[in-house]
Amino acid sequence: MDSFNSFKQWKKQCLSKIDLSKKGTIDEIIVHLVSYLNESENFFSTSSCSGRIILIDGASGSTEVQKQGCAWLFVTHQKCAKEDLISSLQKSQGDAVFKFEPFVLHVQCHRLEDAQLLHSVAINSGFRNSGITVGKKGKIIMAVRSTHCLEVPLTREGELLATEEYIDFLVEVANQKMEENKKRIDRFFSCLQHALTTDENTTNDRAEENGSVYTRRRRKGQNKTKCVITTGEDDMQSDEDDLLETGLTFF
Amino acid sequence: MDSFNSFKQWKKQCLSKIDLSKKGTIDEIIVHLVSYLNESENFFSTSSCSGRIILIDGASGSTEVQKQGCAWLFVTHQKCAKEDLISSLQKSQGDAVFKFEPFVLHVQCHRLEDAQLLHSVAINSGFRNSGITVGKKGKIIMAVRSTHCLEVPLTREGELLATEEYIDFLVEVANQKMEENKKRIDRFFSCLQHALTTDENTTNDRAEENGSVYTRRRRKGQNKTKCVITTGEDDMQSDEDDLLETGLTFF
Repeated sequence: MDSFNSFKQWKKQCLSKIDLSKKGTIDEIIVHLVSYLNESENFFSTSSCSGRIILIDGASGSTEVQKQGCAWLFVTHQKCAKEDLISSLQKSQGDAVFKFEPFVLHVQCHRLEDAQLLHSVAINSGFRNSGITVGKKGKIIMAVRSTHCLEVPLTREGELLATEEYIDFLVEVANQKMEENKKRIDRFFSCLQHALTTDENTTNDRAEENGSVYTRRRRKGQNKTKCVITTGEDDMQSDEDDLLETGLTFF
Repeated sequence: MDSFNSFKQWKKQCLSKIDLSKKGTIDEIIVHLVSYLNESENFFSTSSCSGRIILIDGASGSTEVQKQGCAWLFVTHQKCAKEDLISSLQKSQGDAVFKFEPFVLHVQCHRLEDAQLLHSVAINSGFRNSGITVGKKGKIIMAVRSTHCLEVPLTREGELLATEEYIDFLVEVANQKMEENKKRIDRFFSCLQHALTTDENTTNDRAEENGSVYTRRRRKGQNKTKCVITTGEDDMQSDEDDLLETGLTFF
């Protein structure tokens, strides 16, 4: 079976599977984005989360939040209300950690160049921890990841260590991050549309030049927003900057 | 110029450059790891940080810590003392954020399969946010990244919002993370040695089978630690798990 047929078979299998996540559905604010990717010939999404604010109760003294075997005291994919957090904190028996987890998206791509294109879009939209994985059987996954983070321990052995004023401030910070996360998702969607349109036009032009009968469906009415990096995050990522200096001209 | 010669030239240029990072040198606890990679034919490190605990004073009301234009009140690549953090907090004028940032390493690789091998090593050592970047000119970078995080806002407009008891607890948590970080670095180094030895032996065996004169230096006295995933981190990364189920047999 050639690589495109293998890819199509993976795609068919994946999209027909039952969603096994806790929530069971794609998060509302990214439904359009995931659908857009799934309608594209060379991509499909294998998992996603639009971003969430969570409170997890972990075992006391553990070096990190182990999601298996720990209790989820609170979770929202929207902004969070202070009252909800305070009432959830009262249920803590171990070490509760309050977290903001940004948008994450895993996309299987047909060819390496498709993954490169998507990676370029992700970086230019501010998702600087994005990266490609190539599996043993040729499965190519692009993971869209942000450096955007908040992780605050709040209780120790069930005892609350923070004041109400601090929790108030924390909720404000988490909600600001949620808002910024939404902006980045919007930016990613615009950049993606722009990149795929440009890519398809280039493919069509090449096909015409070559007198080839191969053409791909050209998408209409798309928002051709200019894609520019507007965030300045991690100074340790200079190599990625270096790589992506050419990101805009890449597609 | 063929791809190996281009790679060698990049390597030569990169390793002869002055270290432009704030610190100016490779962090002590990863010197052996970086040297080992740089001595390998198909790899060289382009940037690294062994992990650090930092306190950054950002502009008030900003949605995230902007490292450019903000003040670094405190930084250590070791465990941190409570007294140092408290005295640094007194210098805050904006919104100070206390962070633990785990080990990060960017490695330029000769071929995509070298990056895949390194990616597999990274995931099997617990660095689950690792990923590959392929640049326009064929530059292949593998970024070793962890999901290990701590990011705690502590002051608002210079005013401390946390109690001393809380700061005490926080320092304890950050130091535990630093310890866990060191364990992961050690695991990564062992897995890397194991993978490169196996890879080189395979190459040598193939060369012998083919009667080829091509052989590569076989490294001696290496620690052949079995590499197993021992951390359970992000349940949203099931696709990467799926990809990496075969990680150990991959090389």
